[in-house]
Amino acid sequence: MTHTPVPENNTTRLEAFSDGVFAIAITLLILEIKIPGHEALTAYGGLHSYLMHLWPAYLSYILTFFMIGVYWSNHHWLFSFVERTDHYFNMLNVFFLMSIAFLPFPAAIFGDFVMSEEYRTTAVSTFCIGVLLPVPLVLIVYLYAVQGHRLVNARLTATFIRRQRLKLLGGMAFATIALIISFFYPLVSLGLICVQCLMFLLPPDRPEYK
Amino acid sequence: MTHTPVPENNTTRLEAFSDGVFAIAITLLILEIKIPGHEALTAYGGLHSYLMHLWPAYLSYILTFFMIGVYWSNHHWLFSFVERTDHYFNMLNVFFLMSIAFLPFPAAIFGDFVMSEEYRTTAVSTFCIGVLLPVPLVLIVYLYAVQGHRLVNARLTATFIRRQRLKLLGGMAFATIALIISFFYPLVSLGLICVQCLMFLLPPDRPEYK
Amino acid sequence: MTHTPVPENNTTRLEAFSDGVFAIAITLLILEIKIPGHEALTAYGGLHSYLMHLWPAYLSYILTFFMIGVYWSNHHWLFSFVERTDHYFNMLNVFFLMSIAFLPFPAAIFGDFVMSEEYRTTAVSTFCIGVLLPVPLVLIVYLYAVQGHRLVNARLTATFIRRQRLKLLGGMAFATIALIISFFYPLVSLGLICVQCLMFLLPPDRPEYK
Amino acid sequence: MTHTPVPENNTTRLEAFSDGVFAIAITLLILEIKIPGHEALTAYGGLHSYLMHLWPAYLSYILTFFMIGVYWSNHHWLFSFVERTDHYFNMLNVFFLMSIAFLPFPAAIFGDFVMSEEYRTTAVSTFCIGVLLPVPLVLIVYLYAVQGHRLVNARLTATFIRRQRLKLLGGMAFATIALIISFFYPLVSLGLICVQCLMFLLPPDRPEYK
Repeated sequence: MTHTPVPENNTTRLEAFSDGVFAIAITLLILEIKIPGHEALTAYGGLHSYLMHLWPAYLSYILTFFMIGVYWSNHHWLFSFVERTDHYFNMLNVFFLMSIAFLPFPAAIFGDFVMSEEYRTTAVSTFCIGVLLPVPLVLIVYLYAVQGHRLVNARLTATFIRRQRLKLLGGMAFATIALIISFFYPLVSLGLICVQCLMFLLPPDRPEYK
Repeated sequence: MTHTPVPENNTTRLEAFSDGVFAIAITLLILEIKIPGHEALTAYGGLHSYLMHLWPAYLSYILTFFMIGVYWSNHHWLFSFVERTDHYFNMLNVFFLMSIAFLPFPAAIFGDFVMSEEYRTTAVSTFCIGVLLPVPLVLIVYLYAVQGHRLVNARLTATFIRRQRLKLLGGMAFATIALIISFFYPLVSLGLICVQCLMFLLPPDRPEYK
Repeated sequence: MTHTPVPENNTTRLEAFSDGVFAIAITLLILEIKIPGHEALTAYGGLHSYLMHLWPAYLSYILTFFMIGVYWSNHHWLFSFVERTDHYFNMLNVFFLMSIAFLPFPAAIFGDFVMSEEYRTTAVSTFCIGVLLPVPLVLIVYLYAVQGHRLVNARLTATFIRRQRLKLLGGMAFATIALIISFFYPLVSLGLICVQCLMFLLPPDRPEYK
Repeated sequence: MTHTPVPENNTTRLEAFSDGVFAIAITLLILEIKIPGHEALTAYGGLHSYLMHLWPAYLSYILTFFMIGVYWSNHHWLFSFVERTDHYFNMLNVFFLMSIAFLPFPAAIFGDFVMSEEYRTTAVSTFCIGVLLPVPLVLIVYLYAVQGHRLVNARLTATFIRRQRLKLLGGMAFATIALIISFFYPLVSLGLICVQCLMFLLPPDRPEYK
């Protein structure tokens, strides 16, 4: 009886489960945009005016939807060269998904309070924490998979593996800086997040094989 | 190191993720029909009367469910001839899904306020915007895929591609007109949306190959 | 250019989308069991007492979860002999799913009001309508698929097809009777629904081939 | 006409449906962490302080997310040697999923009331009941599948089957003890649940074949 995890030779169900969590987290975001009751309508001066004042919620919806979409796309890309899985990798992936499924909460805090002068700093910092939490978890998932080619294609080049690790470390440094700045200049930090979004529009590197 | 996106030779995971978003958005619609509390029951004169007064919410549920179902069916049809994907296509598809996942919000606004004389125009316009947002995004997704047969079957005829583009442009014109009309005659616009639903009952064209 | 729908030779994506809707509708049920606020706790005399008083909500959860599970299982069984799909069948399936995704609403009405003497009749009738709506839609989906062996295995026996049709018609008669009774004797009707649940525990018939 | 259930030679759709329920239940957890309204903010002295006071909700999120992730992983592992399914097994799996989909409710009760001295015992006991309900249902699912090698690989060793049964019975005993203790020493019981989580980090046994 050994407790070394058995690598499985396919990742189908892991990917299906992850796709499910991504798809649900991304679709739940809309529930954070509130339907107004009579009080809200009176406070905002009618439905039209209420809907106009919701723009921070729309912005939060678009930014967070896009970010989860990008994480999905990168997860997808990761599994173009991760070919096996084992129990520990499943568990690490669960922790990564935990950080993705958490995103509707900071997104709602951001949408509700970014326009309040009193709470803007807290709202943006919370959003930054939410957006950046998945970064170290992606890194851990990645390092576990590539360590000694544990779960990846045996012919994947060491250069490719090093370059991706560097990029992930860079992403984490960027994210940490954005978070620190958010405590002092929330809007600068928000700008950095938007820049990161735009950088994510670039396609990820093509896996290189020997 | 190139940044040209690598086409992948299958769209399985893209379709699975999209199916997830469609399935969740369509199923979340029911959450917008509110369970009454004691105040609502008193205001409406009992549970039976409350449930009867909800008919605009039921109508909104049926219309929006049907529309998302149709978009799902058309997405399904699109992938009968789109055979590859790449990073940019994934991202465009994310933007399209963003417009689908947004639908529970305008559906709820419509269901709650279409019967209020004061807010009917805003409610119907909001619903029109929601229903029509996916149209230009479908068009962009489509154009990206067929441009130079980038992601579609190489034998797909140019006639077929042109005809579908024309249909999509026609759909967009129709949607824009319905939206403009909604600001002046909300109920006419609502009628146009129902007509569009009925037209969607017709099957899409069969892909034509050389 | 023909508008006859093209049968597709596999039902994979139709089943995946349906599974998604079933899985989401069944999992959303828990959201209808409310977490108490301070007022509810005071009204019920504490958390323990509140949780005890929720039993109709638990019952509603169990009954509805089980019913959706059974519909999923039967849908699954249907696709053991339905081998193709077309646009109209996709659309009919969307209407069937609409009735499944609707179930969290009557389930919540039932759970909240079955213990109120004033609203019990309405609550049980609403639940009956919700539970029975899928029955005629299953029948239509079934009839469309088997008509002239349109979408089913060509070797499926006519006897099998007739027997299933009869069973579905029987189920619809049973459901209609339960609904009618619910207006007069709500608890009898509830009993009939439980009987139907138990009958569903029996396995469906094995498809018969020539 | 026989009513013996027909074993099906693949479990694809059963796994897909189950993955859906797992993915949704795990992602719905975030909805139980409430976005504060104006009253909550005033009561807690601002957004920052509110978010800090939410730590029991975060703890509940992490614990429950992890538990559902572990159940998913174990379900996954179970289907590495369960190779067929039948109607009764589908139904038993539905009951197991019912206990998984129930988890967001006790998780929310726990997060909201664990810090209230008055309600702590009830909150922790409710959480224990929620976390432990799936255990006997896993056991039943397992016993049904292995009984006379009904649905498992014919070469699976009897030793392996017995050892897993013993482990599941052990898990159930552990869970029952944690539940009983929760009525007297809620925090001890919570500690036991955390220990169980850590034990779950160990990989499950590798199936043994003759």
